Parts: sequence; structure tokens; C-alpha cells
Amino acid sequence: MTLAQERTLATKVRADFPILQQDIHGKPLVYFDNAATSQKPLAVLNALEDYYKRYNSNVHRGVHTLSGLATDAYEGARDKVQRFVNAAQREEIIYTRNASEAINLVAYAWGMNTLQPGDEIILTVMEHHSNLIPWQLVAQKTGAVLKFVRLTETEEFDFEHYQSLLSDKTRLVSVVHVSNTLGCINPVTDITAAAHRVGAKVLIDACQSVPHTPIDVQAMDCDWLVASGHKMCAPTGIGFLYGKKEVLRAMPPFLGGGEMIADVFLDHATYADIPHKFEAGTPAIAEAIALGAAVDYLSAIGMDKIHAYEADLTAYLFQRLAELPEVRTYGPQPDVRGEGHAALAAFTTGAVHPHDLSTILDQAGIAIRAGHHCTQPLHREVKAQSTARASLYFYNTKEEIDTFIASLKEAIEFFGSVFG
Amino acid sequence: MTLAQERTLATKVRADFPILQQDIHGKPLVYFDNAATSQKPLAVLNALEDYYKRYNSNVHRGVHTLSGLATDAYEGARDKVQRFVNAAQREEIIYTRNASEAINLVAYAWGMNTLQPGDEIILTVMEHHSNLIPWQLVAQKTGAVLKFVRLTETEEFDFEHYQSLLSDKTRLVSVVHVSNTLGCINPVTDITAAAHRVGAKVLIDACQSVPHTPIDVQAMDCDWLVASGHKMCAPTGIGFLYGKKEVLRAMPPFLGGGEMIADVFLDHATYADIPHKFEAGTPAIAEAIALGAAVDYLSAIGMDKIHAYEADLTAYLFQRLAELPEVRTYGPQPDVRGEGHAALAAFTTGAVHPHDLSTILDQAGIAIRAGHHCTQPLHREVKAQSTARASLYFYNTKEEIDTFIASLKEAIEFFGSVFG
Repeated sequence: MTLAQERTLATKVRADFPILQQDIHGKPLVYFDNAATSQKPLAVLNALEDYYKRYNSNVHRGVHTLSGLATDAYEGARDKVQRFVNAAQREEIIYTRNASEAINLVAYAWGMNTLQPGDEIILTVMEHHSNLIPWQLVAQKTGAVLKFVRLTETEEFDFEHYQSLLSDKTRLVSVVHVSNTLGCINPVTDITAAAHRVGAKVLIDACQSVPHTPIDVQAMDCDWLVASGHKMCAPTGIGFLYGKKEVLRAMPPFLGGGEMIADVFLDHATYADIPHKFEAGTPAIAEAIALGAAVDYLSAIGMDKIHAYEADLTAYLFQRLAELPEVRTYGPQPDVRGEGHAALAAFTTGAVHPHDLSTILDQAGIAIRAGHHCTQPLHREVKAQSTARASLYFYNTKEEIDTFIASLKEAIEFFGSVFG
Repeated sequence: MTLAQERTLATKVRADFPILQQDIHGKPLVYFDNAATSQKPLAVLNALEDYYKRYNSNVHRGVHTLSGLATDAYEGARDKVQRFVNAAQREEIIYTRNASEAINLVAYAWGMNTLQPGDEIILTVMEHHSNLIPWQLVAQKTGAVLKFVRLTETEEFDFEHYQSLLSDKTRLVSVVHVSNTLGCINPVTDITAAAHRVGAKVLIDACQSVPHTPIDVQAMDCDWLVASGHKMCAPTGIGFLYGKKEVLRAMPPFLGGGEMIADVFLDHATYADIPHKFEAGTPAIAEAIALGAAVDYLSAIGMDKIHAYEADLTAYLFQRLAELPEVRTYGPQPDVRGEGHAALAAFTTGAVHPHDLSTILDQAGIAIRAGHHCTQPLHREVKAQSTARASLYFYNTKEEIDTFIASLKEAIEFFGSVFG
């Protein structure tokens, strides 16, 4: 891809996102809150509308026309997700509400039923609460022990420390692929290989990577991987769990109900095979179909192109932030090509509280997030009560970064002059 | 409401449902599969589109404009659901993916942590698998014992048998309000009062009642009530759990993750108050907002009007079915006004297998369901391997019933002449 091509990506796709064509407080919306949730292209909205206006029906259990159409589309979307992350089998994809539910599914169905007192779970200090609380609950119930990989001086995953934590007591390593706060990209393939050498299973929280870069679960060799649809152009209410077939098959069920059964008697039941074993009740049908449409949309652009375009944006974002000496970013720096860091920057300024900053920028039409980004322990680790975070996607532009930097500069100067 | 008004309800609302304006196999669609899922009015589709095109954003954690709009709409929908079922407090409404998840939430958070060996759970033989499997899993884990209320001769809830099962060992009574197969309406207020007299808690599966009739959880006095949005004009991917405030507050969390926390440390966490304690991760935001729109839509019509109109349809459906001596319906008969029975009929015919029947009717544009309707034990109880089921909603008409009866008659005559 040439630089000219990269630069035109946002220009090409922007018309696909109706929400971006609006003013906030009289200024064009600059949506820099993509790590919290992405916007949705028309292709996804059309998939929802088409479903509800043409073939809405419950799936699997009906033989009439609408039910057949709905079932085909629902299961067809599973094939799309399978190909998107290069899973070996379609039944290795389980639909969930979001990534949190996917992690809880593993925590309850595998963790609660497998772990013994003294078994060790390795997490990192940079985990999102969704990859922390479920394991705290498992540890409390089972007597398993949590261990935490610390950060290097450059605020990245400390591989040496990780290796020192691994032992034959390690039963699970559950690690975020790309930190939603530090922006660092963890070496998940090496992490997985090292864990497998001691016989531990590996779960990868890929919420911040699946939307932004090509993912190959077979190359990664992880046992489970989770992602949320709403961060990758799909609707809210849908996410997925990938799991190796033999691992998923060995797990007892989690939620009980319709869809997940084979034969039901009053006092016991037998269960369906994967994936349905883990999809109790009427699923998020429209949402799964629209997740398929999102995957089609992203694939048509090309995940390589999206990654390259975002790397270019990342380099520019950090270059422009470096002009502001008051700004302290968290996590490693991207290289000159913008590689080695997600297209986001969590930061603080000396003078302006992140919440105030977010409020001020909102007046200029710029949506950034302020707070702990569901990583409170990490914030304690890096000694920040909260941070501001600008997070980008492939529909954002350098011009928007310029607008953001100009407003940020203004806010810092204003607060510096008033309270400095 | 006069009879003329009742008769015009479907005529008035039908244009609100684009999906109904289509032909299937060259015949106008007759959608009689509403107990599986309802169709969605434009008001609900517009709510989805408006959210995604104007203010899609993650909720609660952002201070920018879109996040504020999304949070207000998401929480505003909770107020609407609260009023719809007359809950005393807004925080008594917990969003879930579907009713199955809502029951599992109670089974895991309350059941797994509370029940002791020998404690008794009373269910009925007519429960949907979603109100059966979770309690089987709880019983397996905790040593609690399941007891089942049997059917009367008219295939209804046997209250005498129920009373004989109640004792000081009873910890929970979990009962369906309206059977999705028998169509009977269980006396949930009396069931609840009797359970409370022995100190047991009560969960009501209201999936087939909330969409069709006014519901008052305070009058019912149940401890929990569950319903699914997709059966009441809302999108897929959303349902809710109602729980009494003090009951929900006393329950430990279920799914762990973002949104449900107060303060998180590496080794422990404190949790948010209800409702957020039970809503881990990014919720089904658009779906919750659209559930609010569905509630507005239903309320604007009036749930008593919907109930009266459907009772009239029910009386007519059973009157017409009675013309066919080959048809055996399940559950009690409605009275002459169509009361005492949901607007659905599960039935078998001597000659035609339910699946064949559903396939034949589909050729005439008529969508009915065939199978066990997620009530396998009940089917065993009434000695049917499977049944056909026609289930109606307020947009259906007597003319559609006529079309259905004519096709049903034809199918029975054809199979009778060929295989009879």
C-alpha cells in the first residue's frame, strides 16, 4: 500500500458512517472514543434492518420459511467470524453478549469446575476489569491463586517476570493482547508457547486487537480468545468466544436453557454439541447476523490496510502529542512508522484533570474518554488516578488529530494561565 | 372497549410491521409463531436506527455528549420497563440477553450460593427448559432437590398437589406464568402467597404473559420475574430480570467485569449497587433503548386492549379448531370470551406429523412451529412426541385464522386420503 492509499482510507469510508456527519456544539464531531465502542457503517445498519423487515424469526427450532432464513443467516455469520480469526472449525465460535461474558463463560464453565486450591492463574497488572474480576471470583470459590505479571520500565509486558511466574502450578494464563490504556501489544504467541510448555491453558483478551489488525488464532495457538462486536463495527449486544474444539467440548455447560440441550428429562438432561451447548435461550440473532456484516465490511477493506492506516495515524498522534511538554503518555512509544502501539493514547497533563479536559474538548466537538478505562489496578501501578484517552479507528484522519491537538493545547494553556 | 374497537386493532397496527407486508411462496404471510418471537414495529426499528446514526456511544463511563445521550436513553429505558411491570424501584430492573440468562443469573448468584443439601426447589412439569436446566445444574452442585407440580386432568397447574409439596424445606418456587405449550394461565399470585407462607422465594417466568397482558409485580409479590424482549416487539439480544430490591442487594454478583464494580484491586474488588452490579461489561445498549421503545409502543395501544383483542382471537381460534375432529389441542379450553387461555394452540392431528404440517402450511404462507417448544418433559407428560403450535399476537386477525384453518383442513384431508 502506498502512502497516498493509506491517507485516502478514511476519506473513502467516512460516508459509510452516518453518525460522523454531524456537529456537536456547532463543531464537526471528532470521535476519538473508539476503544470504548466503534461506530457502525451503513452495511451493518442495513443488515439489522433487512433482518427485522424481511425475515425476523427464532432460529433452529422452526421449519417455516422465515425461520430457515434466520437460521441460515445466524449460522452463516458464525462462518464469517470463523474465517475472520482463522479458527479451524466453525463450531469453535460461540456467540456471547460481549467479551466480558465470554471470559465469564470460561471462568464459570472451566475455572469453577477445574481449578483446585493452590492452582495458579497468571494475569497481568494491565488487565481490564473483565479479565480480572471473573478470576477473582474463581479464586475465591476454588482456592486458586492469582499471580500478576508486572510492567517493564517502558510500561510494557515484562516477559522475564512472566517466565519467572510460570511453574507446574500454573493452570491458566489470561492476558490482554493490546492494552486499552497502555496501547502496548503483548507477545501473545510467545506467551502462549511458554504457558503450554508448563501445561497451562491460555486465554487472550483480544478486544483491542481483533478490530484493528489481522488475527490468526491457529498461529497464536491460544486455547480461548474473546472479542466484542461493538468495538469492531458490529452492534451492541454481541461478542464471541473462540475456543479450541477439544477444550470447548471438555467443558461442562454454563448457562442452561433452550437451544443448548439434546434430551431433557425432569431430573436431568443431555446437552447439545458445541457451539450450541454454550448458547442457551434465544440468541442475539440480529446482532450475530450484523456482526457477520461487520466482518464482511472490515474484510472488504482489508485488515492489513486498516492496520497500516492506523499505524500511520498512531505515528502522527504521538508526534503531535510530543509537541506538548505538559503531556505525559502511558505505555511504550510507537516506532517512527507507528508500529508497536495501538492507535490510542492515554495521557495526563499537569494542569487539567482528565474529566475537565474531556468536558472542554467536548465543547469543541471532540469525544475522548476520561477515567480509569476499567483498569483501576493499572492506574494505581502507573500512579495516575485517572487518564484521558484518545482512541482512533480507520475512519479517523490526521486533520482530526490536528483539531484535537489544537484544542488540547488551548485547554492546557487556559488552565495553566488560570491555575498555573 | 367495544367489539368493533377490538376488531379494528390489528387493522390499525398492521402497517407498523413492515415484515407482515410480504408474500411467502406467493401467499400473504400469516405469522403465527409469536410465542417463539414477535415481529417488531417501525417505532422499535427507528429507535435502533436513531441510536446508531445519532448517538451510539458506550454508557456510564464517558463525559462527552454522545456518551451522555446514550446513558440517558439506556437508563431511561429502564424507567419505562419499571413502569411497564409496575416495579417499585427502577434499580429492580436488570437487563439481560434474554429470559434464560435472567433465570441463570438467579440460579448462579442466589441458588449456587444459598442452597444446601436437602433444600427443595418446586417447579412444574410444564416448565420451559430455561426454567428447568438451570435448577438441575444448581441441584447437582448444591444437593438441593427438585420437586414438580403435576397437571390436573384438564392439563393445568394442580394447586392441591402444589400445596402438598410445600414445606419448611421449600426454598424456591419457580413457575411459568403462562405455558408456551398448554396456554394455561397459572395463578401466580396465589402460588406466591402460598410459597411465602413457608418462607420460600418465588421466581415467575413471565415470557408468555408480559407481552400480552398487564403485569404488576407488586400485586404479584414475586421475588423475581423474568421476560424476554424479543417476544414483546423489542429486538433480539435483550430481556430483563425484575427482583425485589432487598433480594437483589443480598445476592452476590454473577458475571464479573467492567460496569459492575466500585473499587478494583488486583486481589479483590468491591461492587456497584444494583442494577449495575449485575450488568458486567458493555451492555446491549441499543437493544435496551429499543426495548424502551417497544414498551412505549405497547403502552400506547394499552395492554388491556391487547389482552381483550387477543382473548377475542383465542375464542375464535378454538371455536374454529373445534370444527376439526382430527385435532387434539393441549391444555385447558378457553371460556367463550377467550379468557383463561393464551392466544396460542398447541395441537396434534391423527394423520399429519407436526413437522410435515408446518412444512405444508409454510407453502400456504403460514408460519407455525412444530416440535417440543422447549418443553420436552411436558410433551412426555401429555404423551406427545411433538406438537404443532399456532401462536398469535395483536397484529393477527380472524381472517388469518380462517386461512390457517382452511389450510389445516386441507392438509388433514390430503394426508387422510393418502395414508388414512
